[in-house]
Amino acid sequence: MNAIMKRLYQWPLDPAGRLVRLVLAEKGEGFERVDSPAWAPHPDVAALGYGAVTPALVSSDATGRVVACGTRAICEHLEEAYPLPALLPADPNERAEARRLWAWVEAGCEEITDTLLTERVVQWVRRERQPDSEKLRRGAHALRGRLTFLNGLVEINGYLAGRTLSLADLAAAAHLSAYDYFGDVEWNAVPDLKTWYARIKSRPAFRPLLADRIDGTRPVPHYADLDF
Amino acid sequence: MNAIMKRLYQWPLDPAGRLVRLVLAEKGEGFERVDSPAWAPHPDVAALGYGAVTPALVSSDATGRVVACGTRAICEHLEEAYPLPALLPADPNERAEARRLWAWVEAGCEEITDTLLTERVVQWVRRERQPDSEKLRRGAHALRGRLTFLNGLVEINGYLAGRTLSLADLAAAAHLSAYDYFGDVEWNAVPDLKTWYARIKSRPAFRPLLADRIDGTRPVPHYADLDF
Repeated sequence: MNAIMKRLYQWPLDPAGRLVRLVLAEKGEGFERVDSPAWAPHPDVAALGYGAVTPALVSSDATGRVVACGTRAICEHLEEAYPLPALLPADPNERAEARRLWAWVEAGCEEITDTLLTERVVQWVRRERQPDSEKLRRGAHALRGRLTFLNGLVEINGYLAGRTLSLADLAAAAHLSAYDYFGDVEWNAVPDLKTWYARIKSRPAFRPLLADRIDGTRPVPHYADLDF
Repeated sequence: MNAIMKRLYQWPLDPAGRLVRLVLAEKGEGFERVDSPAWAPHPDVAALGYGAVTPALVSSDATGRVVACGTRAICEHLEEAYPLPALLPADPNERAEARRLWAWVEAGCEEITDTLLTERVVQWVRRERQPDSEKLRRGAHALRGRLTFLNGLVEINGYLAGRTLSLADLAAAAHLSAYDYFGDVEWNAVPDLKTWYARIKSRPAFRPLLADRIDGTRPVPHYADLDF
């Protein structure tokens, strides 16, 4: 027997860490979670590599270890190491579309995470100060634009990149779930996306995310509700 | 015979399009280039998919076509479709490192492209106005930081992610070559990176980039010089 031990350095409300948790859970891979918030990284992280940041996954077995940092390195590695269930379509054209939209979600949501989510965290988790209302407004505006785009995609396809679940869906759900913790997603404005999210939310892999409770905060009432 | 026709929509000084051109050339795959600048996209591009942007690669043969947009979708597709020469290491740990640094380059250079390179293009290519000196300064500052980081990596490894060329190197060289067209890279401040760039620059795959001449501009004298 050659058991593989996995340790994931992440912070529970970071959308990137949430994506990795979803991928590991979909593939049935157990792992140990270690909290490492961006503003106070776990000391192990810097030792993982020159410029290493979270999320960082360390997989060790008797033959050595694999260190993967960032969603691109981690998710592609997991897809190669644990091909089933596949989270990228087999067809090259659909595969390219899933990767395009996965990248689109990550690039397009960065501004929302940096403004809206960061300000919520500063106010409610770190309790440092009142949020910057201009940043909240900017983030909310960006979020509305992304929701409209995503709603258009699921209206066509059912899932973002076609008729099956892919990394694009998990990336989008990871981001939206983090914003939803503080009640920032106006689901009623995007009915098709709401139906899509209800479907993703009810997957067993999603349960640990819905169980997250960050110190001193509680999520909005509908956060963990499968019938919201 | 089942010839595959490839068409790449890109703009010559866009670092993302340069990366794709390098990957195709390293793999010995011919393609037709179609100019599609961000400010005046080729009409074909919007029809490639909902929200499609450049670089976009369309590969067609008798059995169908593959549309890939964005460097993540395109380069991973090319690596799967044309595995040799490999541009990601075979070892899972080194592979994860190459993808981490590839992502790091793209995220870390975005600010430089959006400020420094964009202002140069506005001034010299589009000839719309004088550059915004504050943006030039911000971009130059960001570039110095990235150069220092990259110099540290090649000093350790020879290439960015280890002892062999990978997508991380091609991504970094694609970005730096675009900034270098206007003379914005202070090579003498980063001697190890300068040696690395001289090595990459002398690869046959790099020649088409060095031959680029954008309408109405000429690159700085050392741009195409292999012994700069």
